[in-house]
Amino acid sequence: MHIADRISRLGTETAFAVAARAAAHKAAGHEVFPFHLGDMNIPTPANVMEAACRAMRAGKTGYCPSPGIPELRDALALDVNAARGTSYAMENVAIQPGGKPVIGKFIMACMNPGEEVLYPNPGYPIYESQIEYHGGVAVPYRYLRDTSGFHIDLDHLQSLITPRTRAIIINDLQNPLGAQCSDAERNRLAELAMRHDLAVLLDEAYFDIRYGGKSVSLASIPGMAERSVILYTFSKKFAMTGWRLGAAIGPREIIDVVAKLNVNDESCSNHFVQHGALEGLTGDQSGPLAILSTLKERRDAAVELLNSMSGVDCPSPEATFYLFPEVTELMSRKGFTDDYASFAEDILVKTGVSLCTRLHFGRPLHGEERRFIRLAYSGIDVDGIRKGLLALKTYAAQ
Amino acid sequence: MHIADRISRLGTETAFAVAARAAAHKAAGHEVFPFHLGDMNIPTPANVMEAACRAMRAGKTGYCPSPGIPELRDALALDVNAARGTSYAMENVAIQPGGKPVIGKFIMACMNPGEEVLYPNPGYPIYESQIEYHGGVAVPYRYLRDTSGFHIDLDHLQSLITPRTRAIIINDLQNPLGAQCSDAERNRLAELAMRHDLAVLLDEAYFDIRYGGKSVSLASIPGMAERSVILYTFSKKFAMTGWRLGAAIGPREIIDVVAKLNVNDESCSNHFVQHGALEGLTGDQSGPLAILSTLKERRDAAVELLNSMSGVDCPSPEATFYLFPEVTELMSRKGFTDDYASFAEDILVKTGVSLCTRLHFGRPLHGEERRFIRLAYSGIDVDGIRKGLLALKTYAAQ
Ligand SMILES: Cc1ncc(COP(=O)(O)O)c(C=O)c1O
Ligand SMILES: Cc1ncc(COP(=O)(O)O)c(C=O)c1O
Repeated sequence: MHIADRISRLGTETAFAVAARAAAHKAAGHEVFPFHLGDMNIPTPANVMEAACRAMRAGKTGYCPSPGIPELRDALALDVNAARGTSYAMENVAIQPGGKPVIGKFIMACMNPGEEVLYPNPGYPIYESQIEYHGGVAVPYRYLRDTSGFHIDLDHLQSLITPRTRAIIINDLQNPLGAQCSDAERNRLAELAMRHDLAVLLDEAYFDIRYGGKSVSLASIPGMAERSVILYTFSKKFAMTGWRLGAAIGPREIIDVVAKLNVNDESCSNHFVQHGALEGLTGDQSGPLAILSTLKERRDAAVELLNSMSGVDCPSPEATFYLFPEVTELMSRKGFTDDYASFAEDILVKTGVSLCTRLHFGRPLHGEERRFIRLAYSGIDVDGIRKGLLALKTYAAQ
Repeated sequence: MHIADRISRLGTETAFAVAARAAAHKAAGHEVFPFHLGDMNIPTPANVMEAACRAMRAGKTGYCPSPGIPELRDALALDVNAARGTSYAMENVAIQPGGKPVIGKFIMACMNPGEEVLYPNPGYPIYESQIEYHGGVAVPYRYLRDTSGFHIDLDHLQSLITPRTRAIIINDLQNPLGAQCSDAERNRLAELAMRHDLAVLLDEAYFDIRYGGKSVSLASIPGMAERSVILYTFSKKFAMTGWRLGAAIGPREIIDVVAKLNVNDESCSNHFVQHGALEGLTGDQSGPLAILSTLKERRDAAVELLNSMSGVDCPSPEATFYLFPEVTELMSRKGFTDDYASFAEDILVKTGVSLCTRLHFGRPLHGEERRFIRLAYSGIDVDGIRKGLLALKTYAAQ
C-alpha cells in the first residue's frame, strides 16, 4: 500500500527502543534495573479502582458526551482552580484519553502549516513530532544548567521569536530535566507570550508530583488563561498511566474545537474510568499522598548515590520523577565522547542499568558539549535503585 | 485565541444535536422514545466486566505497548481469521481506543491532500469529515433502493473513479441503511479496488451484529487483504460502546504506521480494558448471543409496526441495528416536502419519538427525491419500541 507523504514527518518516542533492548537483555538472563521507564510500578489507589468497577457494574458502559461526563468536568475545573487560582468552569474542560492527546489537538487547533512553534529541547519528544507532522516549524528553545538545576535560556528564547511564531509549549516541572521556573522566569515567559500574541500549551503533567514547595501555574498570571491550554493528566498523580485519562483545559473557543476533534477521533473517553477519576479528585486523598512519599524516598536514594559517583553530577529536583545528571567527564573518560548509544549499551551490559540519554528528548542542538543521561525512578523501587546505582558507581569508579 | 484554518474543514456528528433536543424535550416533562441513539442500553456481558476488574486489581494499570497487549492482538487475529478466512497475525493488529480512531488513522496513513476518497452517502458522517479535514476530496457514492433493501449503485461508483482516486471506504453491513452486499457486488467492488489500485477501509463495525445468514468480509477475496484495513470494534458485539476499544487490522506496513500514530496520539489503549476484551473473544460466548437475540426481537417489533404505517415502507435488514424506512409519501402529506428538520421536530413534539433523518448521514446528493428517516433500536427496549411506534402510527394515519 502507498503510504501518505505526511507520515515521513511523523516522529516517535525513541525511548521505546530502550525498553525493547532492556527486555531483550533481561530475557537473556541478566538482571535489569529499569531506570528508562516513564511508567510507574505503583498501584492505582484502591478507592479509584473500586469506584471505576462500581460504575462499570452500574451500567456506565455506554458512550458518554465527547468532552466527558459533566460531574468530572465540573470537579476537575474546581480542582484546577483551587490549585492554580484560575476560574475555569465545566465548559473549559474537555476530557481526553490521556494527557498526550492534548499535544496533537493543541497543535491542530492553533497552528497553521508553515507557522513556528517554540518547544523545550531537551523535552518530551512528542512536541517536536506533532509540530512537524502537522506541517509546522519546530523551533527548539534550550536550558542552562547552574548549581540549582536547569533554567530556560530566556534571552535565547526571546531571540527565536519571529513574526511567524504562533505558539509556545511550556513544560514547567519538566521531563526530562526536572526543571521548574522561578516566579521571575514565569513572569518573563508570560510577558513574552502576551507581547507576541502566542498561543501557549502548558504541559502540567507533573504539576502534582512534587516533594516540597508548591507548584505554580503560568495560567494563574493575569492574561495567560485566555491564551493557554493546560495539559492535565490523571496518569501520574493517581498512578493511572495505563487507564488513559487526562484533559485539555482552556478558553471555551479552543475547548469547543478540541471537543469537536474528540467527536472525530475517539467519540469520548472511557465512561466508567471517568467515574474512577472523579473519586480520585473528590474522595479520600491518602492514595496520592502515599504515591508521593514513595517517590520522594526513591528520589533521595537515587540522587545521593548518583552524586557519590565519580564523573556524575545530579541536581535534586523538587518535582517530577526524573533525574538528568551530567556525565560529561564520565562519558569522555570511558572513551565515548558524544556516542550516547554506545555509552548506554556499555552501562547496560556492564551494570544492568537501563537508562535513557539526552538523545531521547529531541534532536540535539548545535554546539552541545555537556553530556547528560536521564533516569526515571517511577518504575523501580528503592532496593532496585540502590542495587543498580551501586553497580553504576563501581562502573564509574573504574 | 486564533483557530487554525484546518478546523474550518472539520465536520461532526450532527446526530448529537438530536440527542440534545431529545434530552430537552424529556426534561420538559415529556415521554421520549429514543430511536436516535447509536448507543446500546444493554449491559456488557458479566464475564467481560469481571475480567477487566480482575486485571485492574492485578496491576494491569500501567502503560502497555502502543499497538496493544500481545495476547489480545493474537486472539483478535485468530478470531478475525476464523470469521473471515484471512490469515492475519498479531503484527497485523493495532489495538485502538474504539473503532472510530481507525477512520482518521486510515485517512492519514493512506491519503495525500488533494487526493480523492470514495465514501458511502448516506453513511457514517465521520468519513466525510475526516477526508476533508485532512485535505482530501470526499467523493460520495450512492445506494439504490429495491424491494430487498439498499444496494451500492456500482455503475455510478465506477464512473466516479478518476486518476486522483486514492482510496475507498466500504461499510458493508451499513449504518444507517442496514444494507449488505451480495457476493456479486462484493466481487465487483474488489475488482474495482484492484484494477484502480485503491486503498480500502473496510468498516466492519457491524460484522457480528446479524440475525440470519453469515457475514462475509471483502478482505477474504484474494488480493484484497493486501490493500485493506479492517475497522474492528468491541463496541457492538459485546455492548462495550463506552469502554472504547477497537482495532485496525491490515498489512504490516500500514499497521506499523498506525502504531506510530498511536505513539503520538494516545500512547496506548486502556490496559485492563484489553484484558476484558480478551475474555470477550476467548471466554464464554453466551453474552454476545444474548445481545443478538435481544436486538432481533427489537428489530422484528419495529419493522412490523413501521410497515403497518400509512406512507412508511421499511425493509428488514439482516444485520446492524438500524432501520432506514422510506417516508416520502408521509412527509409530503404532512406538508414538509424536503424539510427534514421540521418533520423530525413535528414527530418529536406530537409522538415523543426521537429519530435521525437522512440529513445526519452526509450531505444530501444532488437530485435526491425520496425521503428517509433512520431509527436505531439499540437503545430502546421492545416496550418502548411498541409504545413509540404506535404513537407514530397514529400520527401517520392522520
Ligand atoms: C511531559 C509529559 N507530558 C505529557 C505526558 C503524557 O502522559 P499521559 O498521556 O499518560 O497523560 C507525559 C508522560 O510521560 C510527559 O512526560
Ligand atoms: C459505521 C460505523 N463505524 C464505526 C463506528 C465506531 O464505533 P466505535 O468507535 O464505538 O467502535 C460506528 C459507531 O456507531 C459506526 O456506526
